[in-house]
Amino acid sequence: MMARAIEWLDGKLRILDQSKVPREQVFADLDNYHDVVLAIKEMRVRGAPAIGVAAAYGIALGASGIREAGKDEFLVQLNQVMQAFAVSRPTAVNLFQAINRMRKAARGDGVAEIKRSLVDEAKRIHQEEVTATRQLSQLGAELIKNGFTLLTHCNAGPLATAGYGTALGVIKAVKEQGKRVSVFATETRPLLQGARLTTWELMQEDIPVTLITDSTAGYFMQQKKIDCVIVGADRIAANGDVANKIGTYTLAVLAKESEIPFYVAAPTSTIDLSLSSGDKIPIEERSPEEVTHVQGVPIAPEGIRAANPAFDVTPHSYVTAIITEKGIIREPYGKELLSIAKWS
Amino acid sequence: MMARAIEWLDGKLRILDQSKVPREQVFADLDNYHDVVLAIKEMRVRGAPAIGVAAAYGIALGASGIREAGKDEFLVQLNQVMQAFAVSRPTAVNLFQAINRMRKAARGDGVAEIKRSLVDEAKRIHQEEVTATRQLSQLGAELIKNGFTLLTHCNAGPLATAGYGTALGVIKAVKEQGKRVSVFATETRPLLQGARLTTWELMQEDIPVTLITDSTAGYFMQQKKIDCVIVGADRIAANGDVANKIGTYTLAVLAKESEIPFYVAAPTSTIDLSLSSGDKIPIEERSPEEVTHVQGVPIAPEGIRAANPAFDVTPHSYVTAIITEKGIIREPYGKELLSIAKWS
Repeated sequence: MMARAIEWLDGKLRILDQSKVPREQVFADLDNYHDVVLAIKEMRVRGAPAIGVAAAYGIALGASGIREAGKDEFLVQLNQVMQAFAVSRPTAVNLFQAINRMRKAARGDGVAEIKRSLVDEAKRIHQEEVTATRQLSQLGAELIKNGFTLLTHCNAGPLATAGYGTALGVIKAVKEQGKRVSVFATETRPLLQGARLTTWELMQEDIPVTLITDSTAGYFMQQKKIDCVIVGADRIAANGDVANKIGTYTLAVLAKESEIPFYVAAPTSTIDLSLSSGDKIPIEERSPEEVTHVQGVPIAPEGIRAANPAFDVTPHSYVTAIITEKGIIREPYGKELLSIAKWS
Repeated sequence: MMARAIEWLDGKLRILDQSKVPREQVFADLDNYHDVVLAIKEMRVRGAPAIGVAAAYGIALGASGIREAGKDEFLVQLNQVMQAFAVSRPTAVNLFQAINRMRKAARGDGVAEIKRSLVDEAKRIHQEEVTATRQLSQLGAELIKNGFTLLTHCNAGPLATAGYGTALGVIKAVKEQGKRVSVFATETRPLLQGARLTTWELMQEDIPVTLITDSTAGYFMQQKKIDCVIVGADRIAANGDVANKIGTYTLAVLAKESEIPFYVAAPTSTIDLSLSSGDKIPIEERSPEEVTHVQGVPIAPEGIRAANPAFDVTPHSYVTAIITEKGIIREPYGKELLSIAKWS
């Protein structure tokens, strides 16, 4: 059984500190919203769906921590809590979808009732992600044939989703369907989520996995050793453009060059119809130290300048299909994403 | 003044240990050929032209170490020395070119004379690389406009060439011509030659450089922040296919996608007319530990499988031009490479 990335336990948020996996499995019980904001910023909780779930619980925690306030004052302070989450990380839209849902759920006759309904809504968001990732994984698995070798980037498994996983969920479901499958996992510099987390999750599932550097993906595609690429997403614009971990665009270009399908697996909570295209998605620039150091060890000369955009945008024309819990969609993405949104 | 990667001093081979740069500048005086073979295998000397030069001096050292042997016995033992270098690393053809030249130079009336002519030939090979890299750099600089931002991969500077540099040589020559230029350097996992060596060399030359992860190159090309890509080479087949550090093929595909020129800078010692195409170039598979560890620190779960091909092959159709000391050549490469060879 996989360690749970996020769990609501006795009014506290228990998280597995993903920055320490696989070296250590350290759980932290967070009892105030500041710690949840920090855990998101420092990527101890990471992965778009998991960030949304953690923020929802964090807002519930923040609400429960507001004391001796009348309803109006409570709502003012609750708004500040939500604001703290809204500026924690910019790219994954699941965060903003979760904040919006919590804002709408902040209703009730009195403060106590609102606090209760916020906890309920956070649990509902969590449960919905579990169900959605389970469903999209089963749908996506139909695309994968027996004997396929898949390439995945970064980590889109249970840790990233607080559920069944997206890209790795599909891979797990393929195995459950009795098909053989093997995986190439890119290490995913700078923070090595592929090397640390994807390998760890796949080894626990007994799915054969080979770790490669990010630069090696092209080599194995060129050698025809990879049957398809499958990744998660941090935000999908209305036209089907996909923001995901830096390096995803590169894999999509390489897949096109080798005529390999490029799949994106994401729950509908990752879709942002308010943005017409991917160039409007805010791309987080993280600390240069993530590039100049690996697990605290310097790898470059002191004083070197480094750039560290954490995401890139893959134009929809490179995407073979987007796998959601409501169906597998293909071009024209604009029309298809709109019709999925209408069902919600 | 740049530290010399390779120097022949009083009958010994002094090398700068490139595995320790930039943390430390440690020189090693190698007085027997076994140590030179080991330094090549362990990449304390690396870069195709530098490997060729080191092997040439190493063979001279090996010859001088053969004692109390008649000419016939000497030549048998010399052959064993050459064989040890021939199996040290498989991909860079400069190694085999150097061995062939040393084999041809092993002539003379007696053992002492052969030993002397081997030292002379090694010095000649070294000097020719210095001259060739200087010349190709000046030729290549004509391709680079004032204000250009270049992307380079791995390390193709003085350290790699025992001379002026190839890709970095061109960049240095651009600056000498009074043009402004800035560089994105990919870190180049697994052994981080970009992060450790290219940044270090460019900082010493006062050329603005920004370090990025390998996965970030595509992002900046997509953003139109890069005017051209320039790399070195480990072996160029007769049809113009280029073997170079793993990840080079990926950069070539990305450059094509963004319609950015992709240049290869290499002395003619890197050209191998005996291979009709790149798929015949042997690709070295190195230890999985280079992938699972960074500077000795584990980054993945224990027991994980990893693949570590050290090079890839970029088909000639992706290469805008090959910059050699004998001229800049373009398609049709087959014909052009043949005519260059005729001049030698």
